[in-house]
Amino acid sequence: MKIIVVDDKSTDETAYIVQEKYGNVLFIKNEPDMNVGTYYKEKRILITGGLGFLGSNLTHKLVSFGAKVTIIDNLDPLYGGNPYNVESIRDRIRIIIGDVLDESLITPLLRECDLIFHFAAQVSYIDSLNIPFRDLELNARATLLILEIIRKHKLPVKIVFSSSRMVIGKTNNLLVDESINTNPLSLYAIHKLTSEKYLLMYHNDFGIPVIIFRITNPYGIRQQLKHNKYSLVGWFIRVAMENKPITIFGDGKQLRDYIYVEDIVEAFLLSTANPKSTGEIINLGSGYSSEFCEMVKNVIRIVGSGEIKYVDWPANYERIETGNFQVDISKLKSLTGWTPSFHLEEGIRETYKYYKSRLSYYI
Amino acid sequence: MKIIVVDDKSTDETAYIVQEKYGNVLFIKNEPDMNVGTYYKEKRILITGGLGFLGSNLTHKLVSFGAKVTIIDNLDPLYGGNPYNVESIRDRIRIIIGDVLDESLITPLLRECDLIFHFAAQVSYIDSLNIPFRDLELNARATLLILEIIRKHKLPVKIVFSSSRMVIGKTNNLLVDESINTNPLSLYAIHKLTSEKYLLMYHNDFGIPVIIFRITNPYGIRQQLKHNKYSLVGWFIRVAMENKPITIFGDGKQLRDYIYVEDIVEAFLLSTANPKSTGEIINLGSGYSSEFCEMVKNVIRIVGSGEIKYVDWPANYERIETGNFQVDISKLKSLTGWTPSFHLEEGIRETYKYYKSRLSYYI
Repeated sequence: MKIIVVDDKSTDETAYIVQEKYGNVLFIKNEPDMNVGTYYKEKRILITGGLGFLGSNLTHKLVSFGAKVTIIDNLDPLYGGNPYNVESIRDRIRIIIGDVLDESLITPLLRECDLIFHFAAQVSYIDSLNIPFRDLELNARATLLILEIIRKHKLPVKIVFSSSRMVIGKTNNLLVDESINTNPLSLYAIHKLTSEKYLLMYHNDFGIPVIIFRITNPYGIRQQLKHNKYSLVGWFIRVAMENKPITIFGDGKQLRDYIYVEDIVEAFLLSTANPKSTGEIINLGSGYSSEFCEMVKNVIRIVGSGEIKYVDWPANYERIETGNFQVDISKLKSLTGWTPSFHLEEGIRETYKYYKSRLSYYI
Repeated sequence: MKIIVVDDKSTDETAYIVQEKYGNVLFIKNEPDMNVGTYYKEKRILITGGLGFLGSNLTHKLVSFGAKVTIIDNLDPLYGGNPYNVESIRDRIRIIIGDVLDESLITPLLRECDLIFHFAAQVSYIDSLNIPFRDLELNARATLLILEIIRKHKLPVKIVFSSSRMVIGKTNNLLVDESINTNPLSLYAIHKLTSEKYLLMYHNDFGIPVIIFRITNPYGIRQQLKHNKYSLVGWFIRVAMENKPITIFGDGKQLRDYIYVEDIVEAFLLSTANPKSTGEIINLGSGYSSEFCEMVKNVIRIVGSGEIKYVDWPANYERIETGNFQVDISKLKSLTGWTPSFHLEEGIRETYKYYKSRLSYYI
């Protein structure tokens, strides 16, 4: 689905024409709260980790709506923060290089915003065990700090948080909804879950508006391709572009729900503009599961180079392998009317198209 | 149930006589693993928060079994650490005053022990919001630190952790078993849950033996009575002894499962000695729920002074009030054969008897 900003004064006829022209369109006339463009116009928005994958893609869209975006990013070389991601809109946003754990830095930024997208994170579940206390700081304590600042100073700020399907742990081909028991298998996932609990508690106790997205397997443009700890789709596109073998552990038949970043951004925008989403945990996936090896085959076919190499699971991966995963996205759909636009093949094609001329900025 | 150490060579006849004499007795002949006294004799045991309520009561029992107990306690004046608690066994244990978050202090202590009971904690769910980051440190980070030290140095140490029924959050009169969804309502409870997740993960990934007890409402001797943030049973005994009014919020009809500390200690001892408990979350309550106001009436009757004053719920309490609570203790029973010995009235009587001549040490 594309988000089309339609003037409140448009007639039903206009709506019909737009629908005909653009296909599946969000068009809600005379409901200003749901008019996504209007909602974000002039809004003061803070994006932590805003130079990274999710943050920068969201920033592009927000800037196009006339939002006033401030990015805070520490440019940790391990992760995806990359000034190139926002180069084309550099003069329309404010960028602050710093750490989200720095209270004196983020307090004034929170005072000056209406909405915070909190994406700054230690993003690798594999790395989390190598830097356990740093992971605790970034993936849990930072969320608590933001909430405490908002509570103490009574700031009217809404928080949108990117959690992960990883909080759920091992499942096997069940259709997983938001009420499932959580059994996180890595420190990364434990700390994301801790942040979820913080957000729900501060929402319940102090009325701070929050939205929590449990994102499945995100991929797409503006993601770093320096290593394979982040998202395998992007990494494999790089490997295929370099015409190297792509390693698959086991038979590669495990199911994953891959979601293209543009669909994620649209889900963020629709949900955040919609008061019904406040206080909710929302699964954010495509709702469609592909075999891991299918994804790899798509990458190789679209890129036109690379090959598959099958090997056994390494022992330390098997413990944190989550099994087949199929996510129920009906809550998101019913709250916002959102549906994903990008099938896996289409998303991989878009991603490859982007990196084809820009690979050097991301490796 | 009392734990009676019976020689492995005892005959069935001996067993019968012991049973006759002592009533409900744990007697497992020729199963050395389950011979609790033998299990703890000469065992090197570290107890964090060992001068406090649970730790000191456990220490008394362990010392009687010939265990080599080291206590680490920071004697934070807010909490229950109290040297008087172990005065009578002072020369049979080692006491270290220090912080469990001090890595250089606890690393050698972990190297020198077979078993750690990790009780050091910020123990008030009400206080946790006043000191959110300290609560994070004590109730979550400390557990991670202990696990990391054990993992890094490959120490053969079993960890027993005191979690809380608070991790579950609001329920209403359901019989709550260990598989229930967790919705913690305070930072205290969120951090206890985070610690649970750490312990399960390190158990699954690195084979570190752990046991997690979700304790309901503990009360009994050797608990501080300085303020009402800890356990209301003890606090009310003090208030009644001082012949002051006891405040009940609302109608006092909410159900709680109160468990006497001697029953808790016996559950710790039986479970820890039993390999079947390893890797498990275990509810630890009496399995019997009393109305809150019944508990208060018992206190006033047994102490022989004090009176009830009913007032409305304060707004900030209502949010974290957990509703009726009835805990399913069948897992603990089937794992260990444990059953509680102290009915509420008996436990309150024991507690009052203790404080009658010792109140000044605890207020």
